[in-house]
Amino acid sequence: MAKPVGRRGETRERILATALDLFVEHGVHGTSLQQIADRLGVAKATVYHQFATKDALIQALVQPVADTLGELLTRAEAAAGREAQVEVVIEGLVEMVLARRQIAAVMHGDPAVEAAIRATPELAVRSAKVKDLLLGPDPSPSRRVALSVFNAGLMLSGTDPELAELPEEILRQELLGTARRLLV
Amino acid sequence: MAKPVGRRGETRERILATALDLFVEHGVHGTSLQQIADRLGVAKATVYHQFATKDALIQALVQPVADTLGELLTRAEAAAGREAQVEVVIEGLVEMVLARRQIAAVMHGDPAVEAAIRATPELAVRSAKVKDLLLGPDPSPSRRVALSVFNAGLMLSGTDPELAELPEEILRQELLGTARRLLV
Repeated sequence: MAKPVGRRGETRERILATALDLFVEHGVHGTSLQQIADRLGVAKATVYHQFATKDALIQALVQPVADTLGELLTRAEAAAGREAQVEVVIEGLVEMVLARRQIAAVMHGDPAVEAAIRATPELAVRSAKVKDLLLGPDPSPSRRVALSVFNAGLMLSGTDPELAELPEEILRQELLGTARRLLV
Repeated sequence: MAKPVGRRGETRERILATALDLFVEHGVHGTSLQQIADRLGVAKATVYHQFATKDALIQALVQPVADTLGELLTRAEAAAGREAQVEVVIEGLVEMVLARRQIAAVMHGDPAVEAAIRATPELAVRSAKVKDLLLGPDPSPSRRVALSVFNAGLMLSGTDPELAELPEEILRQELLGTARRLLV
């Protein structure tokens, strides 16, 4: 079964991409390291060599999201005034979802990934900060509900088959428009 | 392990409620019929007697949603004019999510349930009709994106821990308000 694989970093990236495809199709619990190896056409040991557990693999998948949120918060904190901060965060989140559609979807919809996120303190802390920034001080029920709807809707929009045929630039503009209708 | 259980219908309802709790916690793939039996304190055979497969159990969970959508479409088709029809559908969907928060969440977030929905033609057809009614004829990209965000956000709002402390009547009003901002 085992095909020749490239350099260590390349194998790692291919494992992550394949795992993500399978997570989107079957959920995290429905995907084993063996299935990832089979889909990729490598020995299971090749996967284990990179990721001893599925949790380690999930953490590697969500790390870039934690990094992106960190950069986003730095930019937002540098913006002048709450309105500008909200705009920076909205634009940053939309870009993140467009760049990482599948990760955004499994991060929101899958209980197994949600548990992994809670176990990644950096990501949990940054997500909470982003949410607090969008809620603002003493948020009304109206704003809480609008943010909950926008957050779930945004995270899942990148993989929604109903939107699959929209060009990325149109999707970007319309997600920004939806965000502004709900949160600005 | 086996505790005495009540009438057939009662046992069936308890199995469905317990399965739903476990699906929300671990995802459908992460939940076995054995785990459902263990959580409920009954023999695995008691679960098998009601549901031969997990798919049969999922279909029993989503059947009331198919029924609700059927009633909703009948009412919408009886309403005069598109605006009134959209309002009937929005109100009906919000009520459905409030009445069946956990089912709505697993129906939207879990690939295993999404596959079961595709295998339940009645539900798939009705969901598509509800979506078409909300989109309207020749929908713009703006409306497509707004509906995608609203749909995912609504389905997951009933189990969002951030909204858990909101009284149901407030949540109902704010979900309706969010729907109207995006879709009316």
